[in-house]
Amino acid sequence: MPAGEDRLLRWLRDQLDEPLIGDDAAVLPAGGPFAVTVDHQIAGVHFPPGLDEAVIAKRLLAVNLSDLAATGAVPAYGFLALAAPAGFDHKRFFTAFLTACQRFGVRLAGGDLARSDRFTAALTLMGTKVEGGRWLSRGDAAPGHALWLGGTAGESAAGRLLIEQIGLPPSFEAFSSPLRAAARRAVRRHLQPEPQLDLGRWLATRKTGAAMDVSDGVARDLHRLCRASGAGAEIMAEALPLADRFEDLCKTIDADPLALALGGGEDYVLLFTLPEGETPPAGRRIGTITRGREVHLVKNGRAAPLPELGWDHLE
Amino acid sequence: MPAGEDRLLRWLRDQLDEPLIGDDAAVLPAGGPFAVTVDHQIAGVHFPPGLDEAVIAKRLLAVNLSDLAATGAVPAYGFLALAAPAGFDHKRFFTAFLTACQRFGVRLAGGDLARSDRFTAALTLMGTKVEGGRWLSRGDAAPGHALWLGGTAGESAAGRLLIEQIGLPPSFEAFSSPLRAAARRAVRRHLQPEPQLDLGRWLATRKTGAAMDVSDGVARDLHRLCRASGAGAEIMAEALPLADRFEDLCKTIDADPLALALGGGEDYVLLFTLPEGETPPAGRRIGTITRGREVHLVKNGRAAPLPELGWDHLE
Repeated sequence: MPAGEDRLLRWLRDQLDEPLIGDDAAVLPAGGPFAVTVDHQIAGVHFPPGLDEAVIAKRLLAVNLSDLAATGAVPAYGFLALAAPAGFDHKRFFTAFLTACQRFGVRLAGGDLARSDRFTAALTLMGTKVEGGRWLSRGDAAPGHALWLGGTAGESAAGRLLIEQIGLPPSFEAFSSPLRAAARRAVRRHLQPEPQLDLGRWLATRKTGAAMDVSDGVARDLHRLCRASGAGAEIMAEALPLADRFEDLCKTIDADPLALALGGGEDYVLLFTLPEGETPPAGRRIGTITRGREVHLVKNGRAAPLPELGWDHLE
Repeated sequence: MPAGEDRLLRWLRDQLDEPLIGDDAAVLPAGGPFAVTVDHQIAGVHFPPGLDEAVIAKRLLAVNLSDLAATGAVPAYGFLALAAPAGFDHKRFFTAFLTACQRFGVRLAGGDLARSDRFTAALTLMGTKVEGGRWLSRGDAAPGHALWLGGTAGESAAGRLLIEQIGLPPSFEAFSSPLRAAARRAVRRHLQPEPQLDLGRWLATRKTGAAMDVSDGVARDLHRLCRASGAGAEIMAEALPLADRFEDLCKTIDADPLALALGGGEDYVLLFTLPEGETPPAGRRIGTITRGREVHLVKNGRAAPLPELGWDHLE
């Protein structure tokens, strides 16, 4: 009788249309060119321990897809290295993972399973180039470009702080009715971000402009974009898009809205630039790319250097 | 001033000839077709805690390359997801990793760094097809094929048991002089296997024959090869290639040589089939592919069903 791993792999193969899983390496039917990205999700590091396996699965995929979105790529293949403790519900995880893969056009083509006392997943995704498009890069910003943010900032960090306070699964009872909806949205935004693949593909069809996804905070990632482009930037505090009732929500969790919006991280929206006059299908303009290397924040009409707030994964 | 992660990434980029690292996803210069594989190395699961960072790096690469070898692929790109505890020597790890990458023709094209209290690495490797060759598969064995093993079996498992007994770094003082060399080789074989890339490439230029790498034990992996090929097999216990003084070494660690050779795992040699009469550049013939689905072991002239000894990563 086959043992646990072989049994799970057979079940997995049964879920897939034309399984590539089975040999030591997967041979990809499609040629390139490819954009490739890899990202971790580790229990207690990237999400709170005890999270529903189905939510972990969707979060893992979404966070990685956001990197492909930043390249303007069309999702193609996924490779999953999964190490989970005893008792982890693999079928619940994979059912949600494969459903999400199907939604986004990802074909699971390989993986590696292991036991570990701490849940760790590393997902490698490969994407193909948009027809007639280009690859997006964070190094393509030029002075004079308008600087855009694809969605709201800080809400994911507020969701993270909320979970720390109200537990998991979260209990929203302490919130008054209008704030309760905002709190729910923030938790959902933190746990299950929506990758901006359509926006990325649209940007890839433009002639010029830089793009990256905001994973470590708008401030830190903007510094990275400017360094890669050899340019500076000026952003307007008042222009930063915030979620509905975000400021009220921040009060209840004792957080500064601007600090969360600039340095909270895990927003998974695109930060991008476009020549003046071009209007993207999503996002809000938050500033301008400048000559020089300085990054400034304008607040109440006064400009000051923007510190590199945000996440450093090795500190 | 750049913080820890950005600093490390800049150092890394400086080590690479034409770095692909920098954007959210790496755009690969070479087209396909590609074979892709992903493998974990987790402290306390795949190697003992406290192992030298340089050895971890070489082991991680070698184990994954063995999967590419089993496909007959030529190594091309690597993507590394690395989560390590505070105090982990990233530069020592990456210096060894990049040196080994260079030796085998792997170009590090992307990655993800994180902190975790348990060292976990997941490496995704992409390989290209040998010119004029084919992709190898474990499903290509046919009745009448000779069954071969690319190198010795059980030595890696003996090394693993040795480390459990004599610690890490290992102390070989308790061994008499001739056994000491065998013990050293076993520990080295366990910690730093040699992927059989040349053998894989040679097999890929043959017209037919199955191949896979032995990671979970000859017995379990042979069952997998037979299932994938819809065939059976008969192997000769006496034909299994063993390392010099392997049986003496097994005595000192109270292990059964045949059990280790069949079910010890982590041998990272190729198990492959060839039509009668073809002679590979490495390995020893250990049996024959048969009709039916049964896998038999012949020992002292008597055949008996071979149980699926070996590793299951979820048990």
